[in-house]
Amino acid sequence: MAKQKINIGLIGSGFMGRAHSFAWSNVSKFMDTDFEPVLKVMTYGSKKEAAEEFAEKWGWEELAKDWKEIVARDDIDIIDIVTPTYLHKEIAIAAAKAGKHIYCEKPCAISYADCLEMEKAVTEAGVVHYLNHNYRRVPAIEFAKKLIEEGKIGRIYHWRGAYLQDWILDPNFPLTWQFRKDMAGGGPLYDLGSHSVDLARYLVGEVKTVMAKNYTFTPERPLPGKEAVVFRAGSNNATETGKVEVDDASFMVVEFENGALGSFDVTRMAGGRKNYNHFEIYGSKGCLSWNFESMNELRFLNLEDPAGEQGYRTISATLGGHGQAGVWWGPGHVIGYENTFIHAAADFLKAVKDGSVITPNFTDGAKIIRVLEAAARSSEENRQVLVSEIA
Amino acid sequence: MAKQKINIGLIGSGFMGRAHSFAWSNVSKFMDTDFEPVLKVMTYGSKKEAAEEFAEKWGWEELAKDWKEIVARDDIDIIDIVTPTYLHKEIAIAAAKAGKHIYCEKPCAISYADCLEMEKAVTEAGVVHYLNHNYRRVPAIEFAKKLIEEGKIGRIYHWRGAYLQDWILDPNFPLTWQFRKDMAGGGPLYDLGSHSVDLARYLVGEVKTVMAKNYTFTPERPLPGKEAVVFRAGSNNATETGKVEVDDASFMVVEFENGALGSFDVTRMAGGRKNYNHFEIYGSKGCLSWNFESMNELRFLNLEDPAGEQGYRTISATLGGHGQAGVWWGPGHVIGYENTFIHAAADFLKAVKDGSVITPNFTDGAKIIRVLEAAARSSEENRQVLVSEIA
Amino acid sequence: MAKQKINIGLIGSGFMGRAHSFAWSNVSKFMDTDFEPVLKVMTYGSKKEAAEEFAEKWGWEELAKDWKEIVARDDIDIIDIVTPTYLHKEIAIAAAKAGKHIYCEKPCAISYADCLEMEKAVTEAGVVHYLNHNYRRVPAIEFAKKLIEEGKIGRIYHWRGAYLQDWILDPNFPLTWQFRKDMAGGGPLYDLGSHSVDLARYLVGEVKTVMAKNYTFTPERPLPGKEAVVFRAGSNNATETGKVEVDDASFMVVEFENGALGSFDVTRMAGGRKNYNHFEIYGSKGCLSWNFESMNELRFLNLEDPAGEQGYRTISATLGGHGQAGVWWGPGHVIGYENTFIHAAADFLKAVKDGSVITPNFTDGAKIIRVLEAAARSSEENRQVLVSEIA
Amino acid sequence: MAKQKINIGLIGSGFMGRAHSFAWSNVSKFMDTDFEPVLKVMTYGSKKEAAEEFAEKWGWEELAKDWKEIVARDDIDIIDIVTPTYLHKEIAIAAAKAGKHIYCEKPCAISYADCLEMEKAVTEAGVVHYLNHNYRRVPAIEFAKKLIEEGKIGRIYHWRGAYLQDWILDPNFPLTWQFRKDMAGGGPLYDLGSHSVDLARYLVGEVKTVMAKNYTFTPERPLPGKEAVVFRAGSNNATETGKVEVDDASFMVVEFENGALGSFDVTRMAGGRKNYNHFEIYGSKGCLSWNFESMNELRFLNLEDPAGEQGYRTISATLGGHGQAGVWWGPGHVIGYENTFIHAAADFLKAVKDGSVITPNFTDGAKIIRVLEAAARSSEENRQVLVSEIA
Repeated sequence: MAKQKINIGLIGSGFMGRAHSFAWSNVSKFMDTDFEPVLKVMTYGSKKEAAEEFAEKWGWEELAKDWKEIVARDDIDIIDIVTPTYLHKEIAIAAAKAGKHIYCEKPCAISYADCLEMEKAVTEAGVVHYLNHNYRRVPAIEFAKKLIEEGKIGRIYHWRGAYLQDWILDPNFPLTWQFRKDMAGGGPLYDLGSHSVDLARYLVGEVKTVMAKNYTFTPERPLPGKEAVVFRAGSNNATETGKVEVDDASFMVVEFENGALGSFDVTRMAGGRKNYNHFEIYGSKGCLSWNFESMNELRFLNLEDPAGEQGYRTISATLGGHGQAGVWWGPGHVIGYENTFIHAAADFLKAVKDGSVITPNFTDGAKIIRVLEAAARSSEENRQVLVSEIA
Repeated sequence: MAKQKINIGLIGSGFMGRAHSFAWSNVSKFMDTDFEPVLKVMTYGSKKEAAEEFAEKWGWEELAKDWKEIVARDDIDIIDIVTPTYLHKEIAIAAAKAGKHIYCEKPCAISYADCLEMEKAVTEAGVVHYLNHNYRRVPAIEFAKKLIEEGKIGRIYHWRGAYLQDWILDPNFPLTWQFRKDMAGGGPLYDLGSHSVDLARYLVGEVKTVMAKNYTFTPERPLPGKEAVVFRAGSNNATETGKVEVDDASFMVVEFENGALGSFDVTRMAGGRKNYNHFEIYGSKGCLSWNFESMNELRFLNLEDPAGEQGYRTISATLGGHGQAGVWWGPGHVIGYENTFIHAAADFLKAVKDGSVITPNFTDGAKIIRVLEAAARSSEENRQVLVSEIA
Repeated sequence: MAKQKINIGLIGSGFMGRAHSFAWSNVSKFMDTDFEPVLKVMTYGSKKEAAEEFAEKWGWEELAKDWKEIVARDDIDIIDIVTPTYLHKEIAIAAAKAGKHIYCEKPCAISYADCLEMEKAVTEAGVVHYLNHNYRRVPAIEFAKKLIEEGKIGRIYHWRGAYLQDWILDPNFPLTWQFRKDMAGGGPLYDLGSHSVDLARYLVGEVKTVMAKNYTFTPERPLPGKEAVVFRAGSNNATETGKVEVDDASFMVVEFENGALGSFDVTRMAGGRKNYNHFEIYGSKGCLSWNFESMNELRFLNLEDPAGEQGYRTISATLGGHGQAGVWWGPGHVIGYENTFIHAAADFLKAVKDGSVITPNFTDGAKIIRVLEAAARSSEENRQVLVSEIA
Repeated sequence: MAKQKINIGLIGSGFMGRAHSFAWSNVSKFMDTDFEPVLKVMTYGSKKEAAEEFAEKWGWEELAKDWKEIVARDDIDIIDIVTPTYLHKEIAIAAAKAGKHIYCEKPCAISYADCLEMEKAVTEAGVVHYLNHNYRRVPAIEFAKKLIEEGKIGRIYHWRGAYLQDWILDPNFPLTWQFRKDMAGGGPLYDLGSHSVDLARYLVGEVKTVMAKNYTFTPERPLPGKEAVVFRAGSNNATETGKVEVDDASFMVVEFENGALGSFDVTRMAGGRKNYNHFEIYGSKGCLSWNFESMNELRFLNLEDPAGEQGYRTISATLGGHGQAGVWWGPGHVIGYENTFIHAAADFLKAVKDGSVITPNFTDGAKIIRVLEAAARSSEENRQVLVSEIA
C-alpha cells in the first residue's frame, strides 16, 4: 500500500539544499515514515542554470523564480528554508501565514526580535516548525540525553563547550555573506555558537548569565568571487576589500539557571580543527564528552563504578539502543554527517503526522539567539549580561 | 539533457541489498556519472512479501522469483550479486555468459578453484567485474594509497592487520549461514580476512608465505530462528544445536613477496570491537595506521620530519585532496560506511562506460582466497604454506 | 674530585616536602650539577615524631622546631619553602634578609600585595629566588617553548587552558586548609589557576583583561580529621562543619596583551579528571596541545605541511632534543611527575652558581597572582577587569 | 630505630646500572622496607675511569676489577647483574654457590639450557632470585592482574602482544652487542619478546605452540664506535662492517595451554614506535589493553555493563588501589619508567626478608626463553613447534 505523498517546497539550494534534498529523497527508505516526501518545487533565484542542474540531479519536479510563488501554492505542504540567515524571518512568517509546516536551517534569525516574530507567526498558525540544529540527532547525543534523563549524570556542575574551525585562517579568504552582520547576524558566535548553545540547552538547561569576548583578527577581507562559499574560497581576482562586520571568535563564560558553571569557546581560527564541535559535561554521578569529528563515539564516566575501575568509556554509539542508530548498518559501522538529516526529516514527518511539537524549533531558536545577543552585548559593554536583559 | 539509463538486476537482498540499493539510488546525485542507474528488477526468492516491501521502499520496479530470469533478460545491463558466498560462482558465470557486467559482494567465492572459474568466465565474456571490498574506497585509504605511490612511505617493512568483531561472543548466538563451511567458505578468516588481505595486497603487495592458526571456541550453536542475521540473533526457541564448521578466529604471520613481514589477526571473539578493521604499515620513510571505527582519520608519520618533531599525525581525511572525500560535506564533516558504496558504484559505472578494468575484481578475489586457503591449510598441517602451493 | 656542598634548610614537609627531598637527593646523580646538595636541616613544627621519621627516611641531618632557627643559621645556603601558601611571605622575606637563596612552592602568596613584598625583599637582597611551577620543566613543555621561540607557531590567536581535578566531588571531603581563604588565598583559582596562568604567560604572554566567574558548589564541609590532606580525606568523625571560603571552580575569558583571546577553566569538580592540566594553543603557523595526564606527549600541528597531510602529531617528548628529557632513560621511556622536580633543582643550582635569574620566580608569581586577583574581582563585580587595575 | 643494612654488589653498569642504582638509593625512601640497601661495591671492568665517576655519583662505596672478587666477599648479600646477557649464567651460578641473593637483568640467558643451569644453581643454593621484567610492576599491570584474578575478564580468548621500537631503522646504526647471537641470544625476539612473553605468561598463561617468522632486514652493519650503546649510535668512523647475527623483527602466532589464541609482533623497525610495549586481552567477561608509552593508563572493558553503555574505560592507574601506585604522588600524577625499579627492589627486599619466592625469577626466565627458542626453531624449520619440543 503506497504511502501518502507530502510535497516539499525548497527555498534556496547550495550546501544545505543538497543535504536536505538527500534527506527528503532517502528518509522513507531507511525509516518507517507515514509520508513519502515529494521534492515538488525549488527556487532558482538568480542562478537558473545551476538550479536546473541541481533539480535534475535531485529530482525536484519544478522550479520557481521566487519563493513567494512557492509559499502561495496550495499543493505545497512543507516549506524548507535553506537561505542565508537574514531571509529566514520573512519566508517563515509568510509560510506560517499560508499554513505551511516549516523546516528551517539554523541559526533561527539574525536577532532575537526576529526570532520572536517568527515564533509568534508559527504559533498563531499552528504549523509544525523545526529548526535544524542537526547535532541533536547524532545517535551519541541522543544517547547522552537518555543517560541524563535516566539520572546517570546526576546534578550537572559544568558544561565545557567548544566549536572550533579553521577555514578563515587565511586572511585572503574572501568576504562571503558569513562575514556580514546584516546577513549572518554574527560570525562563529552565531554560526557555531548557536549549535553549541543548542546542545547545552538540550543537555544541561537554560543559560542565565553571560560574560563574553568577541574578537575579529582580520578586519578586512577581499570581496568574494562567484565560486566562494563556506569552506571554499574559490578563485578570486578581487582587488577590493571589504570590512568584516562579525566576530572571528567568541569565548564566553556562563551560568546556567540550574547552577551549573559553563564555558563556550567558538572560533574559525583554530588550526587543524575542521568541524570540532566538542563538549564535556561534569555531573555528580557521571560525566560525558563528545566531539563531532568522531561523532559515533560518546565518552561516558560512571562515578558509581568502583573507584579503581572508573574511567571514561569510549562507547561506539552504533547499536540499536543508541538513539536512531539502529536503523543503519550495525555495530561499529559508523555513520556520518548526512545521516543526521535523515533522522531529523523522519522526526519532522512524524510531528506533521501527529500534529505534535518537534524540537528544536523557533521557540528554541529564539532562546538560543537571546543568549548570543547577550554575549554580543557583554562583549561590547565589558560586563556580565543577564540573558533576561535581552528583550 | 537526461543521462543514459542503465538497468540493474539485484540478486539477493538483506543487509547488502539495502546498501547497494542506497548506492544505486544516490550515486548520480553526488557524483558525475555517465549513467543514471535504474533499479529494474530484484529476486524475491522464498520471502516474497519482504521482498515486495523492500522493492517498494527502494524503488525496484519489478520482482522475479529466480535469478535466472533476471540474467536471461535482455534489458538488464548489470547483475548485482548480494547472496551468500556459495552462490556467487554460479550466478556470476551465468551473468558473464549473458554478457552482463557484474557487481559482486565479497568474499569472491568459497574456494580458490571457484574464483578461478569465475575469473575465466568474466575474462572470456569481456564484461566488467567488480568485487566489493568497499574499504579500499574510504577516503583515508585512498589517500594512504596515494602516499605510498608517491614514495612517502618508502620500503615497507611491516604490515600489522587486524579485523576484530565481537558479535558471536554469546555462545547462544545461532548458527546462521556464516557458520557453515559449504555456504561461507570460512568464518572470520573468509569474512574479515578477505577484507584485510585485500587492503594488504592493495597497499603492500602480494603475500608469499603463510603460517596460520584457526580456532573455534564454540563448537556447537543453536539452530537459527527466522530473524537471525549477521550481528542480530533474533528471538530463538531452538532446542537443537548444530556444528560450527568454520573458524571463530584466525591469526596468521605472513611474508610478502617484496620482503615485508606481516601479521593478520581476525576474530569475532574480541569484546568491544564492533567493526575494528585496523592496520599499521611501517616503512623506511613513513608509517601509516587506520581503523575503520574512526574511518575518517588516517594516522601518518613522516620519518623525514626533523627527528624531534616527528609524531603520528591524525589527518582528517575529509578534504578535497583525500580520494573521493571532496564530493561530500566539507572539512571535518565525517562520512560513514554507506558512502563508500557510492564511491564504488561511481567507479564501477565509469569502468562500464570506458570498458576499463576496475579493481578489486574477480582476479583480486581469486588471489585473496588463495591466501586464505593457504592459511587454512597451514592451520591444518601446522606448517608454513607457500601461497603458490594452492593450485 | 668531590663537588662543593650546598646546604638546604627545608621549611615544612608533607607532599611537597617529599617531592623536594627526592629532588635534592637525586639531582646530582642524574644531572651535571656544580653542587652536591646536603639535606641539612628541616622544621618539625607541631609533629615532631612524624618529622623525625621523615628526616630519617630522606636523610635530613638535623631537625629544628622553628623555621626562624633555620633562617638564622650561617651554614644554610638555600631555604626551601613547602608550607601552606599564607606562610610563604614571612619566611621568604626573612630568608632574603638573611641572604639565603629561596626555592619556594607555588602559588607565590595569598595576595598580589604580599607577592610584591616578597619580590622587593629578594630583589634588595640579591638572592636567587625560584617559584616551583614545575610544569614548565616537563620536556614536552620545554619543547613547546622552543617551537614557539623558533617561530613555528607564528602569531598566537588562542589559548585554551583547563586544569581539572575531582578530589572534592564528595561533599563530605573535609575542610582542609585548601578551603580557607586566609591560608590558601583561593580555591582551584589559586591552586590550579596559578599553574595554568604560569604556562600561559610562559608560552603566550601577559594577560591584559579578565572576565571570570567563581563558584562554590559545596558551601559547608566537615571539619578535617588529623589525616586529611590534599587528595586524601582520611578518617573523620567530625560532626561540626565549617564554611568553605574559596571557589570550587573558576572559569574565565581573557585577552592577552599581544591580542590573543583565551580561556581558563579550573575546577576540582570534574569527575574522572585527576590532574588534567591541559592547554591548546592556536597560531598562524602551527598549533600545540598538551595534557599533564599524558605529560610525555606533545601534540603539534604544522600548518606549513601540505594541506592534505596536516594533522596533529603526537610527539613522544622523550628524545635528546626535548628539553631536559635526554638525561633520562631513552626514547619512549616515559618519565613522571617527580622528574620535573629534578629538572627544577638542577636549573636552580645552576642559577645559584652563576648568580643568574631563574624563572618562574617571585616576579612571575606576582604577575600570576595579579591575574588571579583580577579574576576574583571580575567575579565579584560581574564585569571585565583590567589586570592593571590590581595595584 | 635504624634499619638493618643490606649490602649490594653490582656487576656491570651502563643504562641498567644507573636504573638499578637509582632503585637501591631510593627504595627505602618511598617504601616501607625492612632493609636499608648499601651500594657497597661495583665492578669497573675495562673502563675504570667511567666506573669511578659512576660510583662517585651514585654512592657506590668501592670498586672491584672483577665480578669474582665481589661474589667472593663475605659482606655482600645481594648480587645485582646488569651485564650483557651472555654473562648472566656464569655470574649467577657463582653467586648462588656463594649463597648470594640475585637480582638479575633480563633476558635470563642466551639459551634455555643456560637458564636451566641457572635455575638449578639457585634452587640448590636456596637463594632468592629475581629476573627484572620490570613491566610486571607498572601499577596498571598490577591492577590488570588483579582484575584477572578476581574473574573480571573471565575466560581469555585472545592475547595480542606487540613490542615495537625503531632505533635500528637507520642501516648505519652500528653493530653493538645487541646484534651478536653469542652475546644477546637473539634480536628483538630476545630483548623485546622476552618482556612480552613475560607479560603474556603472567596475565594469560603458558604458551603451548609457536609459529614464528624471524627477519633480518639489514644483514650487515658498521662496526661500533666506543660511544655506541642501545638507542644511541654515537659517532663512528668505522669503515668495516660486520654480520648481523640476530633477527630485526619476529612475528609469531601462539596457542596457550588454556586454549587462548595469541600473537606477538616484535620489531626494532617500526617507525615512530619508541618503546611501544602493547597488549590486548580479550575475555568472556572483560577485556584489557595497555601500552607502555602511556604506562599509567589501563583500558578496561566490562562486558557485564549494560550493552549500550559498554566501552573501553581509560583508567588512570594512579590511585591507591592500583598496585603500588599509592606510594607515589596522588591521583593523576603520572609516574615513569624508573618507578617500576623501585617497586621491584621493594618486593625483592621483602622476599629476602621473608625467604619467600619472588616472580619473575629464573624459573620464569627459563620458561620464557624456552618459548623464544621454540619461535626461533619454528622460523628456521617453517613449521609449528611445540614448546615441549625444546629440551
